[in-house]
Amino acid sequence: MAYKHENEINSIVNDLIDDYKGGRTIDEERNFDQPSKEVLSDILNKLQKVVYPGYFRNDSYKIYTVRNKVSMLIEDIMFNLSKQIAIVLRNLSECNCRDLSDEEVRERSEDIAIQFLNTLVNIRELINTDVEASFDGDPAAYNTDEIIFSYPGIYAIFVYRVAHELFKLKVPIIPRMMTEYAHEHTGIDIHPGATIGKHFFIDHGTGIVIGETTVIGENVKLYQGVTLGALSTRGGQSLRNKKRHPTIEDNVTIYSGASILGGETVIGKNSVIGGNAFITKSIPEGARVSIRNQELHFNYDDKERNSIERVD
Amino acid sequence: MAYKHENEINSIVNDLIDDYKGGRTIDEERNFDQPSKEVLSDILNKLQKVVYPGYFRNDSYKIYTVRNKVSMLIEDIMFNLSKQIAIVLRNLSECNCRDLSDEEVRERSEDIAIQFLNTLVNIRELINTDVEASFDGDPAAYNTDEIIFSYPGIYAIFVYRVAHELFKLKVPIIPRMMTEYAHEHTGIDIHPGATIGKHFFIDHGTGIVIGETTVIGENVKLYQGVTLGALSTRGGQSLRNKKRHPTIEDNVTIYSGASILGGETVIGKNSVIGGNAFITKSIPEGARVSIRNQELHFNYDDKERNSIERVD
Amino acid sequence: MAYKHENEINSIVNDLIDDYKGGRTIDEERNFDQPSKEVLSDILNKLQKVVYPGYFRNDSYKIYTVRNKVSMLIEDIMFNLSKQIAIVLRNLSECNCRDLSDEEVRERSEDIAIQFLNTLVNIRELINTDVEASFDGDPAAYNTDEIIFSYPGIYAIFVYRVAHELFKLKVPIIPRMMTEYAHEHTGIDIHPGATIGKHFFIDHGTGIVIGETTVIGENVKLYQGVTLGALSTRGGQSLRNKKRHPTIEDNVTIYSGASILGGETVIGKNSVIGGNAFITKSIPEGARVSIRNQELHFNYDDKERNSIERVD
Repeated sequence: MAYKHENEINSIVNDLIDDYKGGRTIDEERNFDQPSKEVLSDILNKLQKVVYPGYFRNDSYKIYTVRNKVSMLIEDIMFNLSKQIAIVLRNLSECNCRDLSDEEVRERSEDIAIQFLNTLVNIRELINTDVEASFDGDPAAYNTDEIIFSYPGIYAIFVYRVAHELFKLKVPIIPRMMTEYAHEHTGIDIHPGATIGKHFFIDHGTGIVIGETTVIGENVKLYQGVTLGALSTRGGQSLRNKKRHPTIEDNVTIYSGASILGGETVIGKNSVIGGNAFITKSIPEGARVSIRNQELHFNYDDKERNSIERVD
Repeated sequence: MAYKHENEINSIVNDLIDDYKGGRTIDEERNFDQPSKEVLSDILNKLQKVVYPGYFRNDSYKIYTVRNKVSMLIEDIMFNLSKQIAIVLRNLSECNCRDLSDEEVRERSEDIAIQFLNTLVNIRELINTDVEASFDGDPAAYNTDEIIFSYPGIYAIFVYRVAHELFKLKVPIIPRMMTEYAHEHTGIDIHPGATIGKHFFIDHGTGIVIGETTVIGENVKLYQGVTLGALSTRGGQSLRNKKRHPTIEDNVTIYSGASILGGETVIGKNSVIGGNAFITKSIPEGARVSIRNQELHFNYDDKERNSIERVD
Repeated sequence: MAYKHENEINSIVNDLIDDYKGGRTIDEERNFDQPSKEVLSDILNKLQKVVYPGYFRNDSYKIYTVRNKVSMLIEDIMFNLSKQIAIVLRNLSECNCRDLSDEEVRERSEDIAIQFLNTLVNIRELINTDVEASFDGDPAAYNTDEIIFSYPGIYAIFVYRVAHELFKLKVPIIPRMMTEYAHEHTGIDIHPGATIGKHFFIDHGTGIVIGETTVIGENVKLYQGVTLGALSTRGGQSLRNKKRHPTIEDNVTIYSGASILGGETVIGKNSVIGGNAFITKSIPEGARVSIRNQELHFNYDDKERNSIERVD
């Protein structure tokens, strides 16, 4: 640091210290631990090793038996996850834990972590059907290894299935941090509150949004850019806890860029929704819905270029 | 390396050395430092701790007072940011610094860094309104912690607000590297040259593009997949510095997948633009614009499957 | 770990060990190495330094001559890439290498790596045209440094060009892992099997999907959200190896959000496809295709708010 800037730096620091006294949301000075994105991503990596024992091998585990490997992973997840849960239970606004002792918070957090770990066999059962759905549905898939190692859809679904169990156990913030971690890595934004049946397939995935109160049945396929959203969120916080997002019944396929909006909108089973369709009303069972070919404007005359340029 | 491949490796290296003599853009051999994405992302992380003093705590800072923590962060940012600025001022094409001494470049870089740090109180004021807008606008937000820790929209806005100040100080390349870093992590692509008012809300965000000459007022909401773009960029570099992107006035909401294009297009205040609308002309104040329901084709007869398949 | 949870942890581990015996895809217990995303991303980083010798400098290489730097990088890539190739050749389902000795697999892998490294001069030739196309096509580009350092499009194209050479050499899984790594970082999903000519430009890029059997000519420009996809993938694996994706001829521009679908769909040379167009039939040469302005519904009366809300 150049000496000549010492006064300026001190002045900047003083201005910030004063600014922190503004009493606004971002001024909250809190002397406690925060949930850690790094720890949560490490937990997700270890859960991936538990779910797929033959994949994502790590050199440091190579010498152990499967039992030892799994024991180590589960103990590690138990230790770190229960600590993260304790942090959010103790400090964050929705919890009624402020009157509990540290010991009571720790016990409650460990109980929740145990309940979560007991869902892993069920999560594995679901993920296996999702891997099968990816292979069955995608002619570009050469084998299931490729799907497990590289498909963003299967990763986003895995993280959602984990986060959804924690969401059901009423853990605050952590489930959303997990699905946003997957969103960051895949472009697929699934709210942990959504309900999604088995044999779920997402292809490509970038831009998909699945809202909090969406209900999706079994054997559903979604392509990139699909929104399962709310009709309007102008009501803001007043709409909280209302069903704002659609219901997608079994065996529905929704092609890329389609938007399906509204809490009362139901896509009946066995339907196929074509690309770019914009749907705000229920669709009966077995329908194949497509946008009629758009009215397209063709022009081959360079003299008209300027007018056409307007709609590029 | 197998001995048998020694000659082949040597031949590959020789071919590359020859190829580097091609005089093309990618052949430039430059013996100077480059701006570093890693250093810039570290600066952004530290700026996040300055902006939200009660969040993103780092164990290594835990023992310090707030003043000591902020001083350390600001000095660290000052040191690294001014070095990065010096690198781009000294070496990159748009700068007139090639005739300056190293000492003069260093002084100019430090002055710019100080000017930037002096905008932090203003950046905090804006970010606080953005956090409020996220909470007010999103019924799925359980609390502001969740927003600050996990919402990609608020992260992309934070990085944009930092990069925009550096852009206004005419720092080359670094502002764009910062917003592309945010783009990589959020799918939200905001050019640092755009002008954006306070209380800005982005929901979900993947696929949003906000072009360089866009002007956005206060209390604006954008959903995923919105493009605020140019009508045509066929003119390429000849269009540089022209207003090519739209103006969005105060209190406008733009739903997912809408495209608003053109430098003369103005969306009047209090308007609501419906999902998937494709707009290339100005919209008056207070309008609620929606695409009429698309003409949808329904089919329930499997015999027709092939024809319908065509438009899936 | 609290002692009180010891039995519960043991029970969870036992349940998982039992569950691993289910014989499903995700139960495969495999005692061999796996391809590593970390190693592959390191190889891509080093290839980037080879392709752009004056950029992405690394302190540890600074003291060497260009020849020494390139030799070190090539030997490192040779060593790690041939090991990764050996892993996938030996273990993954599509390969006929199970009867080969370790030595034979190693030799075959090294031969493939050498063949790949011999394509680097050609890859550089193509990338240089891609960088030029980015600068020529984008009025927001201030210089080529900015493009090479920060444009996600040029990164996704670089990774595709590398992965495509490995795909042509019939290396399983690794090419797809590489393009999915780029997809994760850019939102641009290019299958390594696609064929793409020189002087290719992608702007913004988030949400772009380019399917496996797509063929793209020279001087083509794509904007964010463009899908070059299949008409229907209901056939799943039965469609494998069929041409399912379109052909885009030379000098075509495709604006944001357009979808072009089907293996028999050809976009004739010099055509311009407007934003959001949905195209399932061939387009003749030189056409400028745009969606006619959508029929938009305007409303200014708050009393009608509820009905309009329906289509937000």
